[in-house]
Amino acid sequence: MNYKVLHYIVGCILKFEALFMILPVIVGLCYGEYKESLCFAAVAIFCCGLGFLETTIGSRKGNLYVKEGFAAVSLGWIVLSLFGSLPFMLTGEIPHFTDALFETVSGFTTTGASIVTDVEALSHASIFWRSFTQWIGGMGVFVFIMAILPMMGGSTMNLMKAESTGPSVGKLLPKVKDTAKILYMIYISLTVIVVILLLICGLPLFDSMTLAFGTTGTGGFAIDNSFTANGNVAAQIVITVFMIISGINYSAFFLIISKQFKDAFMLEEVRAYLGAVLVSGLLIAGNIYQIYQNVGDALRHAFFQVGSIVTTTGYASADFDIWPAFSKTILLLLMFTGGCAGSTAGGFKFSRVVILFKTIRKELSNLIHPNLVKVIKMDGHALKDEVIRSTNVFTAAYFIILLFSLLLISIDGQDLTTSFTTTVTMLNNVGPGFGLVGPTCNYSFFSDFSKFVMIFDMLAGRLEIYPMLIFFHPACWKKY
Amino acid sequence: MNYKVLHYIVGCILKFEALFMILPVIVGLCYGEYKESLCFAAVAIFCCGLGFLETTIGSRKGNLYVKEGFAAVSLGWIVLSLFGSLPFMLTGEIPHFTDALFETVSGFTTTGASIVTDVEALSHASIFWRSFTQWIGGMGVFVFIMAILPMMGGSTMNLMKAESTGPSVGKLLPKVKDTAKILYMIYISLTVIVVILLLICGLPLFDSMTLAFGTTGTGGFAIDNSFTANGNVAAQIVITVFMIISGINYSAFFLIISKQFKDAFMLEEVRAYLGAVLVSGLLIAGNIYQIYQNVGDALRHAFFQVGSIVTTTGYASADFDIWPAFSKTILLLLMFTGGCAGSTAGGFKFSRVVILFKTIRKELSNLIHPNLVKVIKMDGHALKDEVIRSTNVFTAAYFIILLFSLLLISIDGQDLTTSFTTTVTMLNNVGPGFGLVGPTCNYSFFSDFSKFVMIFDMLAGRLEIYPMLIFFHPACWKKY
Repeated sequence: MNYKVLHYIVGCILKFEALFMILPVIVGLCYGEYKESLCFAAVAIFCCGLGFLETTIGSRKGNLYVKEGFAAVSLGWIVLSLFGSLPFMLTGEIPHFTDALFETVSGFTTTGASIVTDVEALSHASIFWRSFTQWIGGMGVFVFIMAILPMMGGSTMNLMKAESTGPSVGKLLPKVKDTAKILYMIYISLTVIVVILLLICGLPLFDSMTLAFGTTGTGGFAIDNSFTANGNVAAQIVITVFMIISGINYSAFFLIISKQFKDAFMLEEVRAYLGAVLVSGLLIAGNIYQIYQNVGDALRHAFFQVGSIVTTTGYASADFDIWPAFSKTILLLLMFTGGCAGSTAGGFKFSRVVILFKTIRKELSNLIHPNLVKVIKMDGHALKDEVIRSTNVFTAAYFIILLFSLLLISIDGQDLTTSFTTTVTMLNNVGPGFGLVGPTCNYSFFSDFSKFVMIFDMLAGRLEIYPMLIFFHPACWKKY
Repeated sequence: MNYKVLHYIVGCILKFEALFMILPVIVGLCYGEYKESLCFAAVAIFCCGLGFLETTIGSRKGNLYVKEGFAAVSLGWIVLSLFGSLPFMLTGEIPHFTDALFETVSGFTTTGASIVTDVEALSHASIFWRSFTQWIGGMGVFVFIMAILPMMGGSTMNLMKAESTGPSVGKLLPKVKDTAKILYMIYISLTVIVVILLLICGLPLFDSMTLAFGTTGTGGFAIDNSFTANGNVAAQIVITVFMIISGINYSAFFLIISKQFKDAFMLEEVRAYLGAVLVSGLLIAGNIYQIYQNVGDALRHAFFQVGSIVTTTGYASADFDIWPAFSKTILLLLMFTGGCAGSTAGGFKFSRVVILFKTIRKELSNLIHPNLVKVIKMDGHALKDEVIRSTNVFTAAYFIILLFSLLLISIDGQDLTTSFTTTVTMLNNVGPGFGLVGPTCNYSFFSDFSKFVMIFDMLAGRLEIYPMLIFFHPACWKKY
């Protein structure tokens, strides 16, 4: 392990965090929350100082192998969360360490699961920071996708492919650095558009911004004790549309920007994702019509919840825990699939679902026609064996972690629905589950032990499992 | 598709079924149940006649490809179940077609899930036939393991390996036919031993036989309305031990018979299986001690339930649905794993679990040491890529069918615990689940549609998924 590089990276992350924390300081000052602003400012200064110390100790030079990348990304998220949780403890709003860490990890992993029982009791500065962590987490995801995922056998790496799809995109994006710039431009533009639209819908600036952070970051922290956008139908529709957009593979936006509309439309993952959203939304709308007795309301709530769950955002426009079992099961399946690779959405990812279906079809076809040699294609290109193998092993690791986490969380003694959906929602970075962790509930009642299991699951899910496994692998930390 | 061969095979199966049905006729006569005996006799004669017709129409000759094998095995189980359900309808004890079919499929797939609300109201002939179907199913599993599984990339084929483990086994078993003979000898011997031991424990002959069928066939149909062996502690211990033995890969018995004790002890799958049984039993015993307040009772109930669930038998010595969540979650995980490949137990199989853990470990090791080439070994031999790939695709297909079945069953509107454990227990051929399908409940309340989904799941689980998928694949039925 190249410790010097790790120090350097941690230092950079701390400096960024200090920079980000200036915003809640300003928000606190605007609302006259001087004590809270002071706490955030103190932590920001501390992070900044420590950051400079770390970059001085560390060095940019030296070998960077896969394991350094994985360790850096795991450590990055952990460091962000540890220092990000300090203001909550300092202000006394979330005094308990495990709770504060849970809430911050939940933000930075864009999960949006909360242990806060009364959101409105929090200061504006803290609500802002809490929502902002989701948005920062979303930015982190893009760094992760570009720098780390290609090392993992690239099972979800559809994003970089956009660079080589056509000559114009190739010219547009000669380097990773430029790709990053465009990604961030799209991400920031989407956020700004949501803020403006929510303002037009009549929401206050504070609500518009915090809700927008949760929408484009696919986080889903509630900003008050009522349902999202509290009955503002127009705002709910805006959020629905932009949640669904935020779950699309960003390479589709690349292609659209470079006017390759046909290629954008042909992306198999995006088609599968949008198809699933449409079918699920209509099925649920039909199923919940009996509750709302109104086509418009049924459709609105159905698509809001589908968009929220499939993109692993976790906002709620209604208490979907009281919906019929069929609708809830559809939502449960969408928690598993998650959104597209190459977006801020969590979950298993539609690209993997598509690949798995194709491998199964190939396996069946091989059994029926043993002499037929068939190549699995995606978006018109043959899939490498490497990618298929990596996807398969990921699937196994994913389900093993899921079941093992369920076992650990069950020690708390909650019913199976609660424990199971908690595990699913954590590993897939969704937010709410069913039962005692439904959209009107929170996670405060779990034991510290369970909360640490959930923290691990949120991080493992966000970082596509391997980095966290390697982070806790002794062989990773051997000195050269 | 070679239809002539299929006709021939179906004919043979019908003749066998006719032969097997003589036993319930005799049982009925012994208990003076003349009407029931007549019904069984009538169906037996009908099966026999149809069997001869089918073998005459069909032919043993012609090409036999993988798809014929898969179609034959699927059709075999379906035909057995369809005709096996006729006596239940004829006697009027299970008049509804779906219910009768469900009960018979549950028997032949060694699931042991029942729709019968009052078992004691059934005639002895019917109870006997119902229990006997599990035992016949167990015999069928060995045919399946030897004839069909090797075609599937052999991911679970540890059994045939025993033939080539050493010279003495090689001499002992020169042909598949002889292997089959020895398998059946072991199976029958185990059954006879259980019957004798249960008689010694003081159970009547009828109970001893029917319980033994469910034990060595790992089926688990209850034979009365009380818990298994109704408080007879000695009988419960006998059943526990022989359930666990029946979940062991039969190649271990091969090796023991040929005095290769060391090799038998070294089988990784068996070690993992027995280790899991031991650890689970002890953990549960510790967890349920609070209920029973007695170490002996806690251990007895813990190991009975662990043995019953891990081998996918499904007997119950206590209502484990009221146990603490941790114990129930351990049982849930054991439902997933199932027993060893090469046994009558259902489920995912320990060989696959071991292979998956090894592939994940290799993946991590590859990421940490990219230049290290590592081979995955099992029982000292390198695993073929073919086997690993097949296991991985199986895993994906397994979870996709599980989740999709859950969706279909949820249309009935039951709570998630009930629907989810129903799906898990059906696909893994266990029997009981939690919630409304706990060990004191039954499946009668589900809709016909859900019951058909469960019938599919039981068959798919029993036949290791692919045969059923191919059976419903149009390409399978094309004429040559």
